[in-house]
Amino acid sequence: MSPANLPSTERQPSRRSAPARPKPIAVSGRRVSGIERFLARYLLRAVGSPPLRLVLWNGEEIAASDAPSPARVVLRDRATFWKVLLDPNYRFGEAYSDGRLVVEGDLVAFLETINRTRSAAGRSGSLVPSALLRRLHRAAANTVRGARRNIHRHYDLGNDFYRLWLDDEMVYSGAYFSSPSMTLEEAQRAKLDYVCRKLWLRPGETVVEIGGGWGALGLLLARDYGVTVKSYNVSREQVQFARRRAKAEGLDSRVEFVEDDYRNAAGRFDALVSLGMLEHVGAAHYREFGRVADRCLNDGGRGLIQSIGQDRSSETNPWIERRIFPGAYPPTLREMMDIFETPGFSVLDVENLRLHYAETLRRWLDRFEASAGRVAEMFDERFVRTWRLYLSGSIAAFSTGGLQLFQVVFARSGSNDVPRTRNT
Amino acid sequence: MSPANLPSTERQPSRRSAPARPKPIAVSGRRVSGIERFLARYLLRAVGSPPLRLVLWNGEEIAASDAPSPARVVLRDRATFWKVLLDPNYRFGEAYSDGRLVVEGDLVAFLETINRTRSAAGRSGSLVPSALLRRLHRAAANTVRGARRNIHRHYDLGNDFYRLWLDDEMVYSGAYFSSPSMTLEEAQRAKLDYVCRKLWLRPGETVVEIGGGWGALGLLLARDYGVTVKSYNVSREQVQFARRRAKAEGLDSRVEFVEDDYRNAAGRFDALVSLGMLEHVGAAHYREFGRVADRCLNDGGRGLIQSIGQDRSSETNPWIERRIFPGAYPPTLREMMDIFETPGFSVLDVENLRLHYAETLRRWLDRFEASAGRVAEMFDERFVRTWRLYLSGSIAAFSTGGLQLFQVVFARSGSNDVPRTRNT
Repeated sequence: MSPANLPSTERQPSRRSAPARPKPIAVSGRRVSGIERFLARYLLRAVGSPPLRLVLWNGEEIAASDAPSPARVVLRDRATFWKVLLDPNYRFGEAYSDGRLVVEGDLVAFLETINRTRSAAGRSGSLVPSALLRRLHRAAANTVRGARRNIHRHYDLGNDFYRLWLDDEMVYSGAYFSSPSMTLEEAQRAKLDYVCRKLWLRPGETVVEIGGGWGALGLLLARDYGVTVKSYNVSREQVQFARRRAKAEGLDSRVEFVEDDYRNAAGRFDALVSLGMLEHVGAAHYREFGRVADRCLNDGGRGLIQSIGQDRSSETNPWIERRIFPGAYPPTLREMMDIFETPGFSVLDVENLRLHYAETLRRWLDRFEASAGRVAEMFDERFVRTWRLYLSGSIAAFSTGGLQLFQVVFARSGSNDVPRTRNT
Repeated sequence: MSPANLPSTERQPSRRSAPARPKPIAVSGRRVSGIERFLARYLLRAVGSPPLRLVLWNGEEIAASDAPSPARVVLRDRATFWKVLLDPNYRFGEAYSDGRLVVEGDLVAFLETINRTRSAAGRSGSLVPSALLRRLHRAAANTVRGARRNIHRHYDLGNDFYRLWLDDEMVYSGAYFSSPSMTLEEAQRAKLDYVCRKLWLRPGETVVEIGGGWGALGLLLARDYGVTVKSYNVSREQVQFARRRAKAEGLDSRVEFVEDDYRNAAGRFDALVSLGMLEHVGAAHYREFGRVADRCLNDGGRGLIQSIGQDRSSETNPWIERRIFPGAYPPTLREMMDIFETPGFSVLDVENLRLHYAETLRRWLDRFEASAGRVAEMFDERFVRTWRLYLSGSIAAFSTGGLQLFQVVFARSGSNDVPRTRNT
C-alpha cells in the first residue's frame, strides 16, 4: 500500500512552480457573522497557528500570524466552513475533493506546515469531541471477505491508471534511493534487491510472498535469485497482470501468483516477504499474521515485512480510510511485535525508510500531475483532486514524521543460520 | 552489563579440551530411594529429556535418552538433589557455586543443550509453582539508591579483576566482530566505531553517555571524533579509573566523567549513547529513561542504546539476579518502546547482535579461565565457579536465542537531520 495524514489545494499545474498570484476564485459573497469570524480564528489557533491565510466565502482573509504564508485556503461557502470546523480530519478531504475548499500555493508545503504546527499544538482543531467522531468514522473490517472488498476498492482501479504514474515494473510501495540521483525505476529496483539481500536468499530456496502487487518482486526473485515463489494477493486485476507477465517471461514454473487471502497460505518455505501489505491487515489481526508466518516458515526460516507505520498509535485519518484505503492502519513497532512474539521469532533488523517513501511519493505525484488530464478522462476531476490530496498528504506525512516506513527482518528464535553482519 | 540464562560445571581447565575421562568425584554413598529415582527421571523429562546423565549421590546414573551425552551432572548429596528439584532456576547455580553439583564435560555445550531442550519442552522443571518461586526471588529495586547499590555489587569488584579478562580498553559490553578473525581488542574497537558511525557524529557536537563503564567510548569520542562528552556512571571505581585515563591522555577538558545517576543528567546534547546499561534500569523505569533522553537531547538530537534483550518477556534468572546482577532485566523490543513513544522519538534502526555477544563472551571466558588461579587468589574458588557459570551460561543464552543484543538508533520524531542510508 501507499499511505497519508491529512488535512488539503486546487489543482496546481506543478507542485514545484512558485506560488504565482492566482486568479481570484469565485466565492459566494454572503456575509460572515462575528461568531464565524471568531471560529475561523479559533480553527487556525487550534491547529497551532500556521502561517497561512484563510479566505472566507465573502472574500475576507483571516491570518493566524504575520509570518510569510506559503498558501491561501479558500472556503467557497458557509456550509463548507462549518463542516470543516466540526470534523476537520474528514471534511477537509471531502471539501477539497469537491472543489469547495481550494488551496492556492504549494499543496505539499501547505500540508507539511499544517502537520508541524498541529503536532506542536497537539490538537485536532475540531469543535466535536474526537471520541464522537471516531464512532462516526467506523473503520472497515478486515475479515477475509472484508479484506477482499477493501483491497478491491483501491487496487482494482485499473492497471491502466496505475501505469500512468508508477514505475515500469509497477511497484506500489516505497522505493530505496541508495543514491539521491536515482530515477524512480532505479530506486524501485534498488529496493527489491535490498530486500532480497536482507532475506539472505540462496539459489534453490523457496519464498512465500504475502501481497504480491503486480508481481515485480516475485518475478525478480524467480528470474535473478534462483528461488521459487508462491505469491498471494486478493486483487484480481493485479494477479491476472502478474500471471501474464510470468507466462510471457517463461517464469511461470518458478513463480506462482495465487488469488487468495494470506490466511489461506499453504506450504512450507525458507523465506517470507511482504511489502506494503501489513497496512491492510489491521492491528487486530497481527497475531494471526504471525501464526501464518509460523506455519509457512521452515526451521531455518526468516522473513521481511515492509510496512508504513507510525511512532505512536493513532487512528487512520478517516478521509483516507473512507476514500483511499478502507481498513488500513499503519502500525507502531510495538504493535508489530504481536506478529513476532507469540510464534517465537527474533527481530534481527529494523530500518526506518520514511524519507525514502517521501521521495518515492514526490516522483509519483510528478508523474500523476503530468497525466492529470488523462486521469480526469478515465475518471473525473473529483477523482483527480482526491488522488492529488492523497499523494500530497502522504508526502507531507512522511516528510514531517507523521508516518514511518519500517522494514523488519526476522527469523526463528535461536536460529543461527542468519547473516552475522549487514555486509554478509 | 554483560548477561545469562541458566541452569551449570566443575572447573574445566579449558572449555575447548575434549571431555577427558574425569577422576571419579566423591559422592556420599547413601542410598537413593525409589521416589528419588522417579523424581530424577521426572526432572530430566521436565527439561525436555536432554542427552545427558545425572549421577546421583550413591554413584547411580540416570539418563533421559540413549543419545551420546556431552556431559555428566553429578549431584553430590541428597540435599542438593532436593533443592535443585524444587527450585532449579536458582538452586542449580547455587549448587554449582558450592561445588555440590558438578558438570563433567563441556559446560557451555551442556548449557546450550539444556537451553534447547527446555525451550522445546516449555517447562521449568520445578516441582514448585513458578508464581510461588517468583515471590521467593523478589528482584532488587532500581530506585536511585537501589541502583547505586546494585551497580556497586557488580562493577566495583575491583578494576584488577576485570583487567584480567576484558580487552585492553576494558569495554564490558558486546563487541562487534565485523570479521570473525578479529581479536577481542579489534572487535571492541570495531563496536565503538560502529556505534559512533550510527550516531552520525560531526566534529564539535556534544554527547551525553549513560553508563560510561571504564571510559573507553567517552575517551574515543573525545579523542577521535572531535566531540565533547559528559558521561554518567554510579560505579565509583569505574569513574575514578576513567578520570585518571582522561587526565593522562590530556582529554579531561573534552570528556567529563560524572559519578551520578542517569536520572540526574543535566544539559542539552546532540547525541545520547548508552551501551550495556539499560539492562540495569528495569522495565518500570523505561518511561523515566525516555524522559531523561527527551530532556537531554536538543532538537536535532539522536541516540543509540545497546542493550541485552529477549524475544519474549520472562523474568531474569533468579540466581543471576541475586549473585551476579541485582536489579537486572533484559527488555523485549516491545518493552523498549516505552522509552521512545511518550517523548515522541522515531526508531530509525535496530540491529540484533546476539551472536556477536556469544563470541565476545567466548573470548572473555577463555581469558577468565587462563587467569582462574589468579581470580581464586583474589577471591576464592566459589567465586571462580560462580563467574564461570555466569560467563558460560551467558554464552549459551546468546548462542541459543534465550538472550538477544539490541542496538537501537532513534531520533526526534520528524527530524530530517538523519542519515538517509546506512552507508552515509
